[in-house]
Amino acid sequence: MKIGLIGAGKMGLGLAHNMIRHGHEVVVLTRTASRVTALREEGLNATMETKAFLEKLDTPKILWMMVPAGDAVDDTVDLLLPYLKKGDIIIDGGNSHFEDSISRAAFLASREINYLDVGTSGGMKGALEGACLMVGGPREAYLSLEPLFKDLAVEGGCGYFGRAGAGHYVKMVHNGIEYAMMQAISEGFDILKKSEYGFDLEKIAQVYDHGSIIEGFLMGITARSLRSPEAVEALMPVVSSSGEGLWTVEEALRLKVPVETIALSLFKRYSTQSDGFGAKLLSMMRYEFGGHEARKED
Amino acid sequence: MKIGLIGAGKMGLGLAHNMIRHGHEVVVLTRTASRVTALREEGLNATMETKAFLEKLDTPKILWMMVPAGDAVDDTVDLLLPYLKKGDIIIDGGNSHFEDSISRAAFLASREINYLDVGTSGGMKGALEGACLMVGGPREAYLSLEPLFKDLAVEGGCGYFGRAGAGHYVKMVHNGIEYAMMQAISEGFDILKKSEYGFDLEKIAQVYDHGSIIEGFLMGITARSLRSPEAVEALMPVVSSSGEGLWTVEEALRLKVPVETIALSLFKRYSTQSDGFGAKLLSMMRYEFGGHEARKED
Repeated sequence: MKIGLIGAGKMGLGLAHNMIRHGHEVVVLTRTASRVTALREEGLNATMETKAFLEKLDTPKILWMMVPAGDAVDDTVDLLLPYLKKGDIIIDGGNSHFEDSISRAAFLASREINYLDVGTSGGMKGALEGACLMVGGPREAYLSLEPLFKDLAVEGGCGYFGRAGAGHYVKMVHNGIEYAMMQAISEGFDILKKSEYGFDLEKIAQVYDHGSIIEGFLMGITARSLRSPEAVEALMPVVSSSGEGLWTVEEALRLKVPVETIALSLFKRYSTQSDGFGAKLLSMMRYEFGGHEARKED
Repeated sequence: MKIGLIGAGKMGLGLAHNMIRHGHEVVVLTRTASRVTALREEGLNATMETKAFLEKLDTPKILWMMVPAGDAVDDTVDLLLPYLKKGDIIIDGGNSHFEDSISRAAFLASREINYLDVGTSGGMKGALEGACLMVGGPREAYLSLEPLFKDLAVEGGCGYFGRAGAGHYVKMVHNGIEYAMMQAISEGFDILKKSEYGFDLEKIAQVYDHGSIIEGFLMGITARSLRSPEAVEALMPVVSSSGEGLWTVEEALRLKVPVETIALSLFKRYSTQSDGFGAKLLSMMRYEFGGHEARKED
């Protein structure tokens, strides 16, 4: 197939090479001349011109967006829209909120343009070598692209889950689960680190990742992270979150589903970003009622 | 090697066949005549007679206990002790508390008997086909048995982690992490189940388990569990715990390590076993101050 890719960042670039390896043709639309040069040096067919980009594609056009969630998605849709015709397919392979995907799909459906929301997991390595793809949107559009999706995914790692938003919904919950699984692993290794045994943490993670109940992708990452304990120690103990954990908890609140560990994992990340006002207040309260030591900042 | 196995339950039986498949000789000590018959029908060399059992072993004796944590371990050690000599090796392959393993190892070391604590993970299938083994105890005893441990484990799934108790300590934290990882998965699928999309949960678990960040042993189990949604629905929503989650939290409290999601996962299990008194009291309190409906049991 011939695919127009918008956004060749870390994930998009991996997908582009994955597509090419499977015999697909890829044209990349990017924003800056320097990026065009860089992509061409990587052997990719890249351009800054939207019209030229779209003219290189077949009918129906297959347009794969790999841009950050939010305004960038709407901006991209707006950019492409004047050139699109009935039957064309736009794919959002990013981490958009499933409700945004529902809105965008409805808007485009009114113009007979197909919109597929594709949750993409597996990290940069997965994008390049075989990802996990969770797809929502019009079934016929999915089926027409299924061979492409199956090429890009590991065997068994591609699924169609229903109407618009389903792909990003399934990916959202995936990330919510991921938050708590990562938090669990971090807590366990915090104990192992503090234990008087003086454990070799990397070795433990490696053994955990071979034949145990908690083996898996995340334990492999844990082992690789612990390869250099100094590099871990050198980091700030601050963990960001990019939305999907929060959205999972918001959806759980809407549905009244108790997702305590996922919510706690999100709060734990916020806690690492906190200015400490809560802890300061708590310290002051202990001082007020019991005269307990309340240390001032140096 | 020639191994005396005490306790051929679900895990022990798998290990016995795993040992035999790798060319080791196994003698099983069991408690009842019917069990001896059953084990012999499985092709195993089994006996009820402690003395006869021990006479069949070489010097030094290799004795692998696969019995429930607690008194059964002490009872087994007491049973064997009169027949043991300097240099013999006892292995505790169960889920003992690491502090018990430290005590037992010290007691046996005073008699020049080696005690290895071996945390065993991977479930029944792992025991049979390739487990994850986490070993603590005297290094020389470990090294003398390393070929056996490596035979029983998947490649890379065997590690020696230090002095007495280290194996069970690493396994304890493994289980603590497991509690929270399982809780996270359950919460995520609870959202997916309640969602208006009407998702195919088994399919989602299968796709999650192929190429995603949360793929792994537990996601495979999740997919298999969801193969029959009716069987899941038919269960009581009650989850037991057998000690290691609690011990992980106790150890975290001793070390003052914040393991919130692991502790929460333990409490969530207790919550499923609760008589609901806390919720009843909360309901009564809402009624007292605000006249909010407080439903009585039918």
